[in-house]
Amino acid sequence: MQENVVYLAQDLIRRPSISPNDEGCQQLIAERLQKLGFQIEWMPFNETLNLWAKHGKGEPVIAFAGHTDVVPTGDETQWTSPPFEAHIADGMLYGRGAADMKGSLAAMIVAAEEYVKANPDHQGTIALLITSDEEAAAKDGTVRVVETLMARGEKITYCMVGEPSSSKTLGDVVKNGRRGSITGNLYIEGIQGHVAYPHLAENPIHKAAPFLLALTTYQWDKGNEFFPPTSLQIANIHAGTGSNNVIPGELYVQFNLRYCTEVTDDIIKQTVAEMLEKHSLKYRIEWQLSGKPFLTKPGKLLDALTLAIEQTTGITPKPETGGGTSDGRFIALMGAEVVEFGPLNATIHKVNECVNVADLAKCGQIYHQMLVNLLDK
Amino acid sequence: MQENVVYLAQDLIRRPSISPNDEGCQQLIAERLQKLGFQIEWMPFNETLNLWAKHGKGEPVIAFAGHTDVVPTGDETQWTSPPFEAHIADGMLYGRGAADMKGSLAAMIVAAEEYVKANPDHQGTIALLITSDEEAAAKDGTVRVVETLMARGEKITYCMVGEPSSSKTLGDVVKNGRRGSITGNLYIEGIQGHVAYPHLAENPIHKAAPFLLALTTYQWDKGNEFFPPTSLQIANIHAGTGSNNVIPGELYVQFNLRYCTEVTDDIIKQTVAEMLEKHSLKYRIEWQLSGKPFLTKPGKLLDALTLAIEQTTGITPKPETGGGTSDGRFIALMGAEVVEFGPLNATIHKVNECVNVADLAKCGQIYHQMLVNLLDK
Repeated sequence: MQENVVYLAQDLIRRPSISPNDEGCQQLIAERLQKLGFQIEWMPFNETLNLWAKHGKGEPVIAFAGHTDVVPTGDETQWTSPPFEAHIADGMLYGRGAADMKGSLAAMIVAAEEYVKANPDHQGTIALLITSDEEAAAKDGTVRVVETLMARGEKITYCMVGEPSSSKTLGDVVKNGRRGSITGNLYIEGIQGHVAYPHLAENPIHKAAPFLLALTTYQWDKGNEFFPPTSLQIANIHAGTGSNNVIPGELYVQFNLRYCTEVTDDIIKQTVAEMLEKHSLKYRIEWQLSGKPFLTKPGKLLDALTLAIEQTTGITPKPETGGGTSDGRFIALMGAEVVEFGPLNATIHKVNECVNVADLAKCGQIYHQMLVNLLDK
Repeated sequence: MQENVVYLAQDLIRRPSISPNDEGCQQLIAERLQKLGFQIEWMPFNETLNLWAKHGKGEPVIAFAGHTDVVPTGDETQWTSPPFEAHIADGMLYGRGAADMKGSLAAMIVAAEEYVKANPDHQGTIALLITSDEEAAAKDGTVRVVETLMARGEKITYCMVGEPSSSKTLGDVVKNGRRGSITGNLYIEGIQGHVAYPHLAENPIHKAAPFLLALTTYQWDKGNEFFPPTSLQIANIHAGTGSNNVIPGELYVQFNLRYCTEVTDDIIKQTVAEMLEKHSLKYRIEWQLSGKPFLTKPGKLLDALTLAIEQTTGITPKPETGGGTSDGRFIALMGAEVVEFGPLNATIHKVNECVNVADLAKCGQIYHQMLVNLLDK
């Protein structure tokens, strides 16, 4: 299996598919799956390419979900080997997307192929949901495929998202849920003027300073059994005309919260509004909800995955809900049980992104064993 | 006189001379003065245009000092009429630079012209020192002209800087000194990362929040007999990559202090450094000293100006040292007595900057009467 997974991962990495470009990745995948009898359905939306491939029929529907797009490389000269060369050195495969997530995507595909080859008349349906818009806007990707499937009454019973979930060792962490994500775009109003005449102006940075301290030190909750505490980060702050003698008329603050099930987006909006009122600020705020939190409680899917990891690596994985959002949030809306498992995430979105070659092969074995655990009874 | 002043002010406002651009303002002025026998000397330095014009000979040398450059308009859609249209409505002339200081610049020029026309053989020298770099860096403007004049032994005895000094009514305030001005460019260091993994990053905005509150609420001093209290304003603040899921790696804060003789630039630098240390911030700071404080005590020039204002408006002006710096700080280095007088400053550097048309004409009369009071004995 190892050779097969690594060759496919390299083939995918060599296609520089920066969001939302697919650069032929899905065509390559579709051709392989078609040979094994998968039904291929293309679902392009605007610039995004999506692939929905199925084998078998009826329930349970077990879907592997993944994306072919990658984040930009940053300064390529900082990479020790070119980011789209898929260079292997000392047992590591280097390249943009190696860990997030062309490596695990290759492992999922090979696992599905091998299972179908060995069990052409397997129970239920094995599917793949692949998009080229996960890393950027995520507006024309999985969410649109999910909408399409729901509109025609198709179901997904169990979904494995191949995001790199492992922390220190392959299999130490799986994700059984994700925090919600909401962004506030806040504009605090002042009165522009000359720095030498502050009594004729109103500096929105000065007015906002106590509020900013309150906002950045507020404890939203303590988390719970399944989720880490809600966390707020200011991502962008801007004010000023560029001149050193002009008091700015407006301050822009953009902050994002990753929130657990102890709060809701409504509570967050109301708390921020109360803080703003308390500090007597003139403001307007625009909210952008990226996803509500979701949770897959222990059950058939999580058990099958946990067992597969134990069988393959000897490690019992810890289910966690921290970290970033993923397309799992859209698939959970279908009522599916959703888990995420993949290789180590230490280098994702960074220079010299890489993945351990032996780990990739084990990922393939784990995905395969999970199918066995779910279907071969 | 009124028409002449207002037409010239409009001509100047219609030239969008944002620092350090002159956009033909000085050429227009030079052509007028040349016709009356002024000697014209151009002193360009880098992108800045400077004009030194003289009429007569010997002492006293009475110089009018002004600038043709203006600050940026900000969002033009917030202006009720376009900022470079020089629109007049209800007796007010609107436009960027109307009050700071193309209006008083026009009044000074017309006053000098009319005095010279009526007194071609006047005592001493009447001069104009005009620059296009007062509002921005002020590095290639008046300071370089002053250096040039000092290097060749030229003197200025009395200098009238036409900055808008009036507060509520024309003539209520003149400036007989100025606070110092110093700018700090502060870079606070954090560690860039993903908002979903704040423990792997260090948000410089969050780290700086308590410091920013301390900086903006600190009381530097209470001022003294000649000077108002020292005041600090944050003019610019920036952090963020533009993405809502990236914790920024650095926060930039630019602040400016207008300081009195109760503190020194060294005390300011040390106090800010102590505040930064107290809040355990990693930072670097670049200081830019624009000018130390200066003072023109009561004497011949202040008397002549005070009398001229009383004669024209019936008001006795109050000498003050508050407000912004001006190029007066450079001319004071020549040993000149320096005063500042001009129209109301309520709208300077703001949206819908404007000046009262009748006040502009009175400014011209006051500048003219000041020449009479100094020279016609």
